[in-house]
Amino acid sequence: MHHWPKIEALTKMVQVWEYYRDELQQVEDTIKKSLNSQVSLINEVAHYILSSGGKRIRPLLLIITSRLNGREANDHPEVLLASSVEFIHTATLLHDDVIDQADVRRGKKSAHTLWGNQASILVGDYLYTQAVSCALSLASQEVNTVLAEACRLMTEGETLQLTHHGNLEVTEQEYLKVIQYKTAALLSATCRLGGIVSGLDLDKREALARFGLHLGIAYQLADDTLDYIADKDLLGKSLGKDLKEGKITLPLLHLLSNCPVRERERVKRILKMDRITERDLREILALMKRYGSIEYSLKKATESIEKAKKNLNFFPSSLHRQALFVVADYAVSRDH
Amino acid sequence: MHHWPKIEALTKMVQVWEYYRDELQQVEDTIKKSLNSQVSLINEVAHYILSSGGKRIRPLLLIITSRLNGREANDHPEVLLASSVEFIHTATLLHDDVIDQADVRRGKKSAHTLWGNQASILVGDYLYTQAVSCALSLASQEVNTVLAEACRLMTEGETLQLTHHGNLEVTEQEYLKVIQYKTAALLSATCRLGGIVSGLDLDKREALARFGLHLGIAYQLADDTLDYIADKDLLGKSLGKDLKEGKITLPLLHLLSNCPVRERERVKRILKMDRITERDLREILALMKRYGSIEYSLKKATESIEKAKKNLNFFPSSLHRQALFVVADYAVSRDH
Repeated sequence: MHHWPKIEALTKMVQVWEYYRDELQQVEDTIKKSLNSQVSLINEVAHYILSSGGKRIRPLLLIITSRLNGREANDHPEVLLASSVEFIHTATLLHDDVIDQADVRRGKKSAHTLWGNQASILVGDYLYTQAVSCALSLASQEVNTVLAEACRLMTEGETLQLTHHGNLEVTEQEYLKVIQYKTAALLSATCRLGGIVSGLDLDKREALARFGLHLGIAYQLADDTLDYIADKDLLGKSLGKDLKEGKITLPLLHLLSNCPVRERERVKRILKMDRITERDLREILALMKRYGSIEYSLKKATESIEKAKKNLNFFPSSLHRQALFVVADYAVSRDH
Repeated sequence: MHHWPKIEALTKMVQVWEYYRDELQQVEDTIKKSLNSQVSLINEVAHYILSSGGKRIRPLLLIITSRLNGREANDHPEVLLASSVEFIHTATLLHDDVIDQADVRRGKKSAHTLWGNQASILVGDYLYTQAVSCALSLASQEVNTVLAEACRLMTEGETLQLTHHGNLEVTEQEYLKVIQYKTAALLSATCRLGGIVSGLDLDKREALARFGLHLGIAYQLADDTLDYIADKDLLGKSLGKDLKEGKITLPLLHLLSNCPVRERERVKRILKMDRITERDLREILALMKRYGSIEYSLKKATESIEKAKKNLNFFPSSLHRQALFVVADYAVSRDH
């Protein structure tokens, strides 16, 4: 297998993608091969969402972590597992879009606007079964258990988020629990699975699971913050989407806890309105900047990434370990 | 374990339920114990749908088939698997109700009318993960594979049904494929799993799988026919529900193929209307009776049950085998 020739250091995300290009291509091939349902609507919807610009961050992490012990690329188990975690992730996207009634995902029309809620729900279910099938081919009880546990936590996290919908009394701790479950649990499982397929000992698997957990928390914290400051091109979605959907995330929670009562009442009034205008959004953004809410949320993300990185000390220096540092920084900065 | 004293024959469904009461109670206990999410909304919705009058036909079949080789009740593996198949079945009900936007299920308000689409989708997903977890505790690759395959077929069947929505050109063969996938696949897997946990040889497992398959087809054929003739009390749903939802089932397909062109055009006109009135429904029912569509569908169900029963010849006579005959008849007659 040929890689980036004479590479001595991985410092940028584009280099990381390039370095693992062959394995990622195998994941793409496996994903394509798995979309072979006799029901063409399933293949159509699944193909659409799976080729709608997802970055494959989970497959990438699984491949990198499966190499940490210096083992050679062995393309079989890690490629199957990388496909499995991507199927799980994609299934949740399909169900999320129905739940949020989101019209756009990554700058493209969401599946439910094109094929309806019904097809989105069913193809989500189908992708879960494909994820299970991919993982089952490894015949590892441990692998299956790790994946099932992650799926359970994700569903619990999504449901918890639903129960918090529009609730401005949610605490920072409750918010952190939601993002730990809905986002970080699968990233943690992904990194743990890399350790399992490469036969690392328990301590190192736990270190990888913690790396994935804190990386996942940081990733979601960054996502929730970028929702208030990033332009459409960077995230493929419009500003303040969470706010408009009644998703209460850290920048807003921080603002409500840290602005004077008069402004808090004003923010609450805006949030209670049926439709939030661009002007209302700008007003809230200005308050977030004034009271350091954006800064605070990004600081939390950075702290979480530092926690993640500490777990990489368990491993000797290698290009693979370097790659994990680069992915960690990318999770917060989204800097290619 | 105490059973119906001095029983020599099982001839009625009430006797069968009574005979396996202890094991079924263990299934209920396992189901209750599994609904222990830290997210109370999940427990609330799951508890509601799981105690809304489901007959537990799948757990019953799993328990009976696990006894066919004369093995003593051993409550562990079969109870876990019985709970697992019931979780899968219930997950599909939750998703189906969102897909059909059905207001009523078994005479009670459906979960999505009480808690919304979002909670129904997520709790359905949660029940899938609980099904996987229950099955995983058996640590059997074969069990996991059988369940994953059944789930895939169910999703394919539901999606196929969706693509046929309102399509009057569907053939009887295409219709049979839908019900085989969406309903019979899980019943087939259920009976196969009973054979697996009791260590039956491959021939007998295959016989049980075929028994479940034909029973499942018959069960759905009967359901689709009763939809046109049964009163609310028997099925817990109102007459012509499928028709109103655009679900094209065998009685209608038979009618369209067997009535004169003038009446076919009349039926098609009715089906194209936004809202089908009671009078329209009565008109279609009268035509179905006149052209023998109800009779034909029930005959198909009876034929399928006879095919199912033939597979029981592989097993020596026993009370458990008798019980399977009773369940088979019940699938078509719904006679307690």
